[in-house]
Amino acid sequence: MKVMNDYFSNRATVRHYKDKEISDAMLTSIIERAMWAPTCGNMQLYSVIATRDKERKKELAAMHYNQPAATEANVILTICADFNRWTRWCSLRGAEPGYNNFHSFIMAMTDAVIFAQQIVTIAEMEGLGSCYLGTVNYNAAEISDLLELPEMVIPVAALSIGYPAETPSKSERLPVKAVLHTEVYRKDNDNDMLGLFKDKEEFPANVEFVQQNGKPSLAHIFTDIRYPRDVNEKVSETFHQLLKDKGFI
Amino acid sequence: MKVMNDYFSNRATVRHYKDKEISDAMLTSIIERAMWAPTCGNMQLYSVIATRDKERKKELAAMHYNQPAATEANVILTICADFNRWTRWCSLRGAEPGYNNFHSFIMAMTDAVIFAQQIVTIAEMEGLGSCYLGTVNYNAAEISDLLELPEMVIPVAALSIGYPAETPSKSERLPVKAVLHTEVYRKDNDNDMLGLFKDKEEFPANVEFVQQNGKPSLAHIFTDIRYPRDVNEKVSETFHQLLKDKGFI
Repeated sequence: MKVMNDYFSNRATVRHYKDKEISDAMLTSIIERAMWAPTCGNMQLYSVIATRDKERKKELAAMHYNQPAATEANVILTICADFNRWTRWCSLRGAEPGYNNFHSFIMAMTDAVIFAQQIVTIAEMEGLGSCYLGTVNYNAAEISDLLELPEMVIPVAALSIGYPAETPSKSERLPVKAVLHTEVYRKDNDNDMLGLFKDKEEFPANVEFVQQNGKPSLAHIFTDIRYPRDVNEKVSETFHQLLKDKGFI
Repeated sequence: MKVMNDYFSNRATVRHYKDKEISDAMLTSIIERAMWAPTCGNMQLYSVIATRDKERKKELAAMHYNQPAATEANVILTICADFNRWTRWCSLRGAEPGYNNFHSFIMAMTDAVIFAQQIVTIAEMEGLGSCYLGTVNYNAAEISDLLELPEMVIPVAALSIGYPAETPSKSERLPVKAVLHTEVYRKDNDNDMLGLFKDKEEFPANVEFVQQNGKPSLAHIFTDIRYPRDVNEKVSETFHQLLKDKGFI
């Protein structure tokens, strides 16, 4: 593992991968190290399902809308909020687990996302590329069926991993002032708020994207195309239903 | 920043800190680098509120039950799922945001936890110690009031940060087999399940903890003392109510 001093400011998501196997030893080593990430009460309320089998990967990629990051991935890791293992252990020991509720899901989801991000950092430091498949929530029930997830296990993050076949161009971020607040949440007026988005709106790739789609602003790309209300509301319903079906609500 | 080759397997949570200031430059630099963590659609659906003021820190620490990690922290960072900034920007541009729903909260929470874990890794690599205050969900409404969080902003992680005043002893983790599943979720029988917890149950600090508390097993420590049903159910209610109050449900 070689780490650049400026790794954190220079990392970028990789969506195209070589047709080159990640060894079992490498994968296990990444997971093993990521398990030392912080975890709530040292309960490790997560599981990860590694999909490498060609046929199953094809099915799983379809649930991620066949985005290249999914179809080209050498491995897809589905990281789950998991209170099943802990609950079973408590029961086997004659204790009375009380984890079939919303707060317990939030605890487990937090654990799972911390774990997922630790996997990303370690994998990237090992020279692999990775991409979160944000679509994991969209078809969470179908993914759960395919991976045979039991009660109290909910997929909350999906990562495609592989040896990079591209050097991704640097994207942009908001100025640090936009996200860092001192003592209390800052009340920006409209002008200051627009100021925070100025560089993003003027970023060449974003300008081009707006023109290509014939939209009046970058914001419309998000509200009308990428994350529109009807999809958000539909996924809210299906994801909430899954929490019920799996015993968290 | 110096990185040990085996940093990830050797990191540990630090709960006691020196009375030594983290400079503004250091704090800003950590946040700035953490912002390059993966984020959903590059929307950066998070904010962080830094609490350093002595009086406010005292109030905030009380909301975290005055655990030493909170009272001794040089800075407490409250990391929030934030759809407020994005929604305001969309509205200011004449677009119609559709983010007042459960799925949007889950998106923003994922973003915020990824960001929080990136802060942890960078801070630790800079020689700082950190500790997640899992209590952030317990008094999320009170914390929101203290930090003056607006609509569509929910605290989902709290980190205490400081220069370490202890070298924490190594804790334990489950065997990698417990969390890593291949192709489908493995169906362990009861014996195999108990086998996964053997080392944890025999870990000296855990054995001592069980004896001190006069409980029949380690599992009872969690179900009866640390994360009991009545608390989980109470927090489920208050946290769900906060999601409603802040416009996500």
